[in-house]
Amino acid sequence: MGGAFLPKFDANGHITAVITDAESGAVLMVAFMDGEALARTRESGLAHFHSRSRGRLWMKGETSGHTLQVEEILVDCDQDALVLKVRPNGPACHTGAQSCFYRKLDGDSLAQV
Amino acid sequence: MGGAFLPKFDANGHITAVITDAESGAVLMVAFMDGEALARTRESGLAHFHSRSRGRLWMKGETSGHTLQVEEILVDCDQDALVLKVRPNGPACHTGAQSCFYRKLDGDSLAQV
Repeated sequence: MGGAFLPKFDANGHITAVITDAESGAVLMVAFMDGEALARTRESGLAHFHSRSRGRLWMKGETSGHTLQVEEILVDCDQDALVLKVRPNGPACHTGAQSCFYRKLDGDSLAQV
Repeated sequence: MGGAFLPKFDANGHITAVITDAESGAVLMVAFMDGEALARTRESGLAHFHSRSRGRLWMKGETSGHTLQVEEILVDCDQDALVLKVRPNGPACHTGAQSCFYRKLDGDSLAQV
């Protein structure tokens, strides 16, 4: 059940990262990491991602200051998805919400959670 | 903050779905949905995904019986990721573990959570 860490990146070189609050367990956001983002995250202890829209490495909070301090990284059965348990320094969502998942499906509309 | 549900599928027609236990909040697995999987999930109340390896629609538990009853669907700020809060009918992981995230990074190795 142990073994070596051999992350499986997809055809685009990305692995899915689910960011959860280390304290509450709430899902804060979902992002993608490439090998560089994963290495920088492990070195610095601050979450780095690959921005698909900007096509570059991105440290969460590099402009807002709302960094994510990584406490633990969980790896799934196939090693193609990660859970990063973090302590957020401010709201995780760029909208100012604590979590990016602040709405729920309600019929064909979105309602505040 | 409300508005219409307009899920953003990626270039491959997929949206990331994070599956959490409705009771404990634990992340159970990560999977991908296409439009068909999302429609079937909403119709049936049971989680359906798009299997990238099999290249087809897949109802979680279709062979194992370990289906996932969907209680609520959360939508993120960009509408390109979903959280499905579920009641699992059995272990969520094909290994028999309750969650696919049963290991954590420990240096360059994996350790049981």
